[in-house]
Amino acid sequence: MIDDETKKKAIRRLKIIEGQVKGIQRMVDNEDYCVDVLTQISAVHESLRGVGKVIVRRHLESCVTSSIRGDNPDSTYDELMDIMYKLSR
Amino acid sequence: MIDDETKKKAIRRLKIIEGQVKGIQRMVDNEDYCVDVLTQISAVHESLRGVGKVIVRRHLESCVTSSIRGDNPDSTYDELMDIMYKLSR
Amino acid sequence: MIDDETKKKAIRRLKIIEGQVKGIQRMVDNEDYCVDVLTQISAVHESLRGVGKVIVRRHLESCVTSSIRGDNPDSTYDELMDIMYKLSR
Amino acid sequence: MIDDETKKKAIRRLKIIEGQVKGIQRMVDNEDYCVDVLTQISAVHESLRGVGKVIVRRHLESCVTSSIRGDNPDSTYDELMDIMYKLSR
Repeated sequence: MIDDETKKKAIRRLKIIEGQVKGIQRMVDNEDYCVDVLTQISAVHESLRGVGKVIVRRHLESCVTSSIRGDNPDSTYDELMDIMYKLSR
Repeated sequence: MIDDETKKKAIRRLKIIEGQVKGIQRMVDNEDYCVDVLTQISAVHESLRGVGKVIVRRHLESCVTSSIRGDNPDSTYDELMDIMYKLSR
Repeated sequence: MIDDETKKKAIRRLKIIEGQVKGIQRMVDNEDYCVDVLTQISAVHESLRGVGKVIVRRHLESCVTSSIRGDNPDSTYDELMDIMYKLSR
Repeated sequence: MIDDETKKKAIRRLKIIEGQVKGIQRMVDNEDYCVDVLTQISAVHESLRGVGKVIVRRHLESCVTSSIRGDNPDSTYDELMDIMYKLSR
């Protein structure tokens, strides 16, 4: 479960990402140089990876931990690997 | 240079991304299941790759083409490789 | 700890990768079309991700599980996130 | 077309990769710690990206350049984008 600290951290980062995306809209609207636009797109990927890490860490500490301490962690391994490789693209 | 068609396509996609990011804020605020939040983050990466492709394609057709048809394309090769590997992460 | 089944699976896949890498050496030596060489390089990345998954799965089942069932799983979370993001590039 | 310099550079790097892959086989056979194996797998990905860059650079300088200087570069743009996003995974 997402706790208060994770919520606060994640939402702050998501607000920044929202601002970055609006900034790229302005850049495109101004017909800025393509490479500058692409550099900003790459920065949003980086910010998204940052917020992903906050959520993954919380997920490990809460759901994954209680599942692995329980009797049947197999589905948790599968789910975790699925996330790892989904976020890895 | 970004032309009108690229601008229209890119801005439409960026508005969708803005909506996706706001949606993730709501999910986090509602304390949705971490894996669902991570799946949505992965969807934003995918959408960003989509808008990146629109811009890269235009960049190839305009700047890269005129540079390569010119006398000194070397810096264009470097810049292009830099973009390729920056967006690839 | 790597067990016998993981060892067998991983080594079989690594032998295939060794063969793929030698094949690319021949392609380069024959001056094959660059795009065909790049497609094969991309195939090796995919095979490596396959062997990575075999090892990660085993790691989750063995070390991660025993650490999380123990008293101090914090360093395991860090290590796991480090792996996730290292393999994700 | 791959030229002599590219050939030499690429083959040297591919030999190193072959050695890295054999090294991972030994690590797995010795039942080394999973995280160490995964770190080495990540190093092979990095080496592959290095050889990919050598080939991509040559491809830009030769095939892409002559195609773009010709009359119908459209298929080259498509092929180039296909490579960029294939190698980016």
